[in-house]
Amino acid sequence: MTERLALPGYRAAITDLLGLLALGQLSGFTRLAADAEMAPTVVLQARMAQLAVTEFGHYRRLEAALVALGADPEEAMAPFRGTFERFHERSRPSTWLEGVIKAYVGDAIATDFYREVAGYVDPQTRALIEETLADEGRSDFLVQVAREAMAAEPAVSGRLALWARRLVGEALTQAQMVAVERDSLAELLAGTFGGPGADLAELGRMFQRLTDAHVARMARLGLAA
Amino acid sequence: MTERLALPGYRAAITDLLGLLALGQLSGFTRLAADAEMAPTVVLQARMAQLAVTEFGHYRRLEAALVALGADPEEAMAPFRGTFERFHERSRPSTWLEGVIKAYVGDAIATDFYREVAGYVDPQTRALIEETLADEGRSDFLVQVAREAMAAEPAVSGRLALWARRLVGEALTQAQMVAVERDSLAELLAGTFGGPGADLAELGRMFQRLTDAHVARMARLGLAA
Repeated sequence: MTERLALPGYRAAITDLLGLLALGQLSGFTRLAADAEMAPTVVLQARMAQLAVTEFGHYRRLEAALVALGADPEEAMAPFRGTFERFHERSRPSTWLEGVIKAYVGDAIATDFYREVAGYVDPQTRALIEETLADEGRSDFLVQVAREAMAAEPAVSGRLALWARRLVGEALTQAQMVAVERDSLAELLAGTFGGPGADLAELGRMFQRLTDAHVARMARLGLAA
Repeated sequence: MTERLALPGYRAAITDLLGLLALGQLSGFTRLAADAEMAPTVVLQARMAQLAVTEFGHYRRLEAALVALGADPEEAMAPFRGTFERFHERSRPSTWLEGVIKAYVGDAIATDFYREVAGYVDPQTRALIEETLADEGRSDFLVQVAREAMAAEPAVSGRLALWARRLVGEALTQAQMVAVERDSLAELLAGTFGGPGADLAELGRMFQRLTDAHVARMARLGLAA
């Protein structure tokens, strides 16, 4: 255990952060698995299901890390139920293609956010976070599926661009709420427990970077951001 | 490869059977993962998600077996899309407890059915089927969750008994349709390709055994069948 992890305030913040990540993976698993049902072929359904299963593996890894920290996973995740319920409630895809875009865009923006936050934690925790964020060919697969589906149905691209905009709006709203309103995480980002800290201007730049990366991903899909 | 697997008609029937099993596991994965969302706690949600992930592992195993048989998994599963869509459409749980009962009752009756069918196939295929039907503590967990939830809310037991009756009715209907209307499977059960065969009276007894086992499971839950 690193020195910072011995500080109760820092430990509490890391417990919060891992609880947030764990519930994100678990709720991501559930929604992805359910959205896979809209797949046009069984093989695509299974590929999407595999992405969900990988997320569940990450959940397990984070749950074990919480237990190793001496935390109760249920308690650590509980504060974030509303966050993910709201996000998934407001971004329920109604078609297979919307589900694919959500898996690509929503997950990528969450990943970028957690990577930014990982810059503020101890090396041991950072390594764990990076491990659970590994892409493993996921984006390439989703981009390929999305491009093929859009090529077959070019008229949908306008609607999908709006859908992606809504996804990113919801994701950034939830990320901002968590980063600012959840005391322990706000303090973590502010550097209260030692280590690097961000002032408000830097937080603003962080969210700007998240938006920029989203715009680049939209371009990769051939969609207007 | 056993001698019978070299017969084209028998191979086609086994391809059908494995396609049926594979799609059952994949659609079971999806519905179970989605139903897990109704769990009252995150830990219970994760336990249910784990059951779904185990089903996905079985799906993978069956998909690989289809490929090894020289079959296209997509084509092998396609004839049964309607079967599982109808079943899940008509048995969509509206509460966590209904989902738990469905996972217990629906899965058990499917397992019993496949075990009966496994009596008509070559030893190699039978071993594969048995492997993907392994219970691994699943029933014990579901019975425990259901009993605890019912103890907290005894008034629901009447409604749940009706729910279970509907589940078993739907499951048996789909099983009967598949066993009788799908030519290759009907022929497999009739012993057309060598090996044991069942006459109509024996098929009737098979479905009677499925019903009896269901009644015993209901008793284990303390519910009227």
